[in-house]
Amino acid sequence: MPETLTTTDPRTGTRSDTGIAPTSGDEVAVIVARAKDAAQEIASRSRAWRARLLDGLADSLEEHRDRLVSTAETETGLTAARLEGELSRTTFQLRLFGEAVREGGFLEAAIDHATETPLGRQPDVRRMLVPVGPVAVFGSSNFPFAFSVPGGDTASALAAGNPVVVKAHSAHPLTSKVSYEALRAGAERVDAPEGTLGIVFGQQAGVTLVEHAAIAAVGFTGSLGAAQHLRAAIEGRPRPIPFYGELQSVNPLVITEAALRARGAEIAVGLSSSITASGGQLCTKPGIAFVPAGDAADQFARRLGDAVGASDPGVLLNERVLASFGESVASLEAAPGVIALTGATTPDGTGFSVAPRVLRVQARDLTTAHTIEAFGPLVLVVDYHDVDELAVALAQVPHSLTATLHVEDTDLGRIVELLPVLQEASGRIVFNGYPTGVRVSWAQHHGGPWPATNTVHTSVGVTAIRRFLRPLAWQNAPETLLPEELRDDFAEIPRRVDGALITTSRSGGS
Amino acid sequence: MPETLTTTDPRTGTRSDTGIAPTSGDEVAVIVARAKDAAQEIASRSRAWRARLLDGLADSLEEHRDRLVSTAETETGLTAARLEGELSRTTFQLRLFGEAVREGGFLEAAIDHATETPLGRQPDVRRMLVPVGPVAVFGSSNFPFAFSVPGGDTASALAAGNPVVVKAHSAHPLTSKVSYEALRAGAERVDAPEGTLGIVFGQQAGVTLVEHAAIAAVGFTGSLGAAQHLRAAIEGRPRPIPFYGELQSVNPLVITEAALRARGAEIAVGLSSSITASGGQLCTKPGIAFVPAGDAADQFARRLGDAVGASDPGVLLNERVLASFGESVASLEAAPGVIALTGATTPDGTGFSVAPRVLRVQARDLTTAHTIEAFGPLVLVVDYHDVDELAVALAQVPHSLTATLHVEDTDLGRIVELLPVLQEASGRIVFNGYPTGVRVSWAQHHGGPWPATNTVHTSVGVTAIRRFLRPLAWQNAPETLLPEELRDDFAEIPRRVDGALITTSRSGGS
Repeated sequence: MPETLTTTDPRTGTRSDTGIAPTSGDEVAVIVARAKDAAQEIASRSRAWRARLLDGLADSLEEHRDRLVSTAETETGLTAARLEGELSRTTFQLRLFGEAVREGGFLEAAIDHATETPLGRQPDVRRMLVPVGPVAVFGSSNFPFAFSVPGGDTASALAAGNPVVVKAHSAHPLTSKVSYEALRAGAERVDAPEGTLGIVFGQQAGVTLVEHAAIAAVGFTGSLGAAQHLRAAIEGRPRPIPFYGELQSVNPLVITEAALRARGAEIAVGLSSSITASGGQLCTKPGIAFVPAGDAADQFARRLGDAVGASDPGVLLNERVLASFGESVASLEAAPGVIALTGATTPDGTGFSVAPRVLRVQARDLTTAHTIEAFGPLVLVVDYHDVDELAVALAQVPHSLTATLHVEDTDLGRIVELLPVLQEASGRIVFNGYPTGVRVSWAQHHGGPWPATNTVHTSVGVTAIRRFLRPLAWQNAPETLLPEELRDDFAEIPRRVDGALITTSRSGGS
Repeated sequence: MPETLTTTDPRTGTRSDTGIAPTSGDEVAVIVARAKDAAQEIASRSRAWRARLLDGLADSLEEHRDRLVSTAETETGLTAARLEGELSRTTFQLRLFGEAVREGGFLEAAIDHATETPLGRQPDVRRMLVPVGPVAVFGSSNFPFAFSVPGGDTASALAAGNPVVVKAHSAHPLTSKVSYEALRAGAERVDAPEGTLGIVFGQQAGVTLVEHAAIAAVGFTGSLGAAQHLRAAIEGRPRPIPFYGELQSVNPLVITEAALRARGAEIAVGLSSSITASGGQLCTKPGIAFVPAGDAADQFARRLGDAVGASDPGVLLNERVLASFGESVASLEAAPGVIALTGATTPDGTGFSVAPRVLRVQARDLTTAHTIEAFGPLVLVVDYHDVDELAVALAQVPHSLTATLHVEDTDLGRIVELLPVLQEASGRIVFNGYPTGVRVSWAQHHGGPWPATNTVHTSVGVTAIRRFLRPLAWQNAPETLLPEELRDDFAEIPRRVDGALITTSRSGGS
């Protein structure tokens, strides 16, 4: 008999048995075979049904809200308020994707009728995106709902018309299980095929999952190390499949002189909230803040240190995050020129609590040793003397999901040359705000140049669906064999017909 | 001094010196550095300029038509007529991409204004696709224009706003050089930055190129073996980059009973042309044809054998293709149950000529030994007894760029269950035609499941541009810092605004 999985309450450090056994290799094979069976069935159903499935999942999650939040609270140490918000965001996303499925633009349907061209007579060609097949999803520890069993990758893959098999995160197996049960209940209500949703537990089961021939794509949110481990398994497959990884991010934030003068106190408070929220365990947490050197910077740093010092201790998600945060802090404190602005005393309380930290260094001393991601409540303040020094220092920061600029109209001109640099180094540029709190919408992009992510795709927002689709073309097909979206008389979705983009009254907004 | 590269006339086997030296590592570094410099400059120019660049390249290729065609004729053995057509297709594609750049839909511009949502107040977020950076292009031997220096990958990468460095194919270095010179002349006319186009020669230079830190993506058309070699180099990079490979394809063709009865003679002639055109060296050549067993099949096979036997000998592109075709033929002829329907006599003439071949086997005998790609003028006819036997036999065929179905209205019903199988196994389904002759248009898809290609993208048609773009989002950006395509009052391109797709009078057709 395999040992069962344990779970730990990060608030107390108390470990307990979950009663959940790791999924065996044979069980993984059965689960994926069911997903494969479901793939053709789901692909053959209408977009309307697919949208009802997404809505049904959202409804069911809402019905299980109390159990989901209380279970996640115990397993993650995140506050109930934060988890309530995260679950709302998760159901909002499922419904938004349902809207997108009904609207149909994501299919990128295109029709080129047979015609004479400068190259001679050309055949009728029609194209749209179709589901890739069963998708494996690996969620993160820090978002037990939004990037986990019912999260963005699952919503994207289902919206694209694929079955999903989730690998439950080892830090919240019970939350994964109750989330999965809630999703199953929602799926059954709309008569989804059995293999629409599957779940596996245990690290080995995750490897077996991505090695399975029927898995067509992998969505992953987590650490670079875990990603490399999975990638090695995926690269060993005879048939390569896409691996969409959201990996790590330092998220530089730059404050200009005018912004510091005009809003220094306000930014100190805002930044403090942004780096301490959820124990600093957000992939978009600004980990490094550049301020123009001088008296105002000293005052800013003091205020930031006070605000951070006065905030509640951060409860980290699990022992691994605790250990890794400790290593990062030690490494950063030992880096040349670094000064600590907050006390290092371990906070009162038990479990995986840590004191939020503010460190400081001069831009001229900045090296890559200073720009590692510390996953937890920490920010490094960097004093720069001019835009040139700032540019050199920014080049030491790994490419990130986001880059933030606090700037006033009066000094836009001085900073404008930096914009191409920030754009090349990130996936989202935030002005006069904070990168945490990622809007779920049509225009959102959550991704960035390596090592933020490993592909040119997003894992948040409607266009995340594109990852789990592939193009398919039909040449001279009889009308009856075409998907309805590609028939001449179908006018319910936006399409490109003979090069012209044609919208419909249904191509409506949200 | 490095040795200079040689070139061989496939019609005679005569080898001669090109005077072109392999590009050294230092030279590659200089060329890529220039491309990197050009990247920011090109990205900052207008779409109108970018469209003029594409038009200018097409114009210049037309002006150099005679020299290009005669050089390619000598290096590839392809006929002047075929090369004239290929060059026309290449310039047509550049101009079509210019239209697409003007139209602007490929940017996928989206604006979500700040608003109240069920999740609270949300910021203004705007997103569009931006160029990835310098692109390395590896062309194929069989399309010296359309998939080579001035081909689809180059057109896609430039349309996306990236500089391009091409690795010249070793089988046509002179064609590559004159193509490059023609493109350079066109680029200079619109005042393109020097690094907009670069070229390197020699296998080692190709490896050095993809290993260079500034290269952001690789487009490749060629053999699986060469692709694996490059992939190994790419996977050794600290920063992973996308590798878009178009690799190999067997392209099954299925004839139903009613189609064989109604059009057997016509299909035999059409198929013969499709497999012997360009010496059978097309990635979409139908390499395996399934016919319903019986007298009609015997007659069809005889007619096909006669038509193929009467066609001109195929001149293969180079010694490697010649050797590989010989191995494939020997291997297929030795496979269980295979009968040759055409003579194996080597045709008269010198150089790399081969006799086109038709082989035949029973579906029940079909194994993966029968379904290798023979790159050259060869087709394997497979007799099947019913749809079940056909389905089992099709499962032995590697996934392909295309799948073709010759069918009549009267027996559509009997074959319809096969459609999901063909769709899962290919990227384009062709009805009552031949997969060779790929239309260049908005709706085209040229790609397919592994091993046809290694990604879910196309290398022909307007959407090929997507490969060399990445999303970028702006949050709460001042209007003046946004690209003009994302400003509120800009109405010249289709955009998704607050979820609604909005077209313009300029979203016109072709």
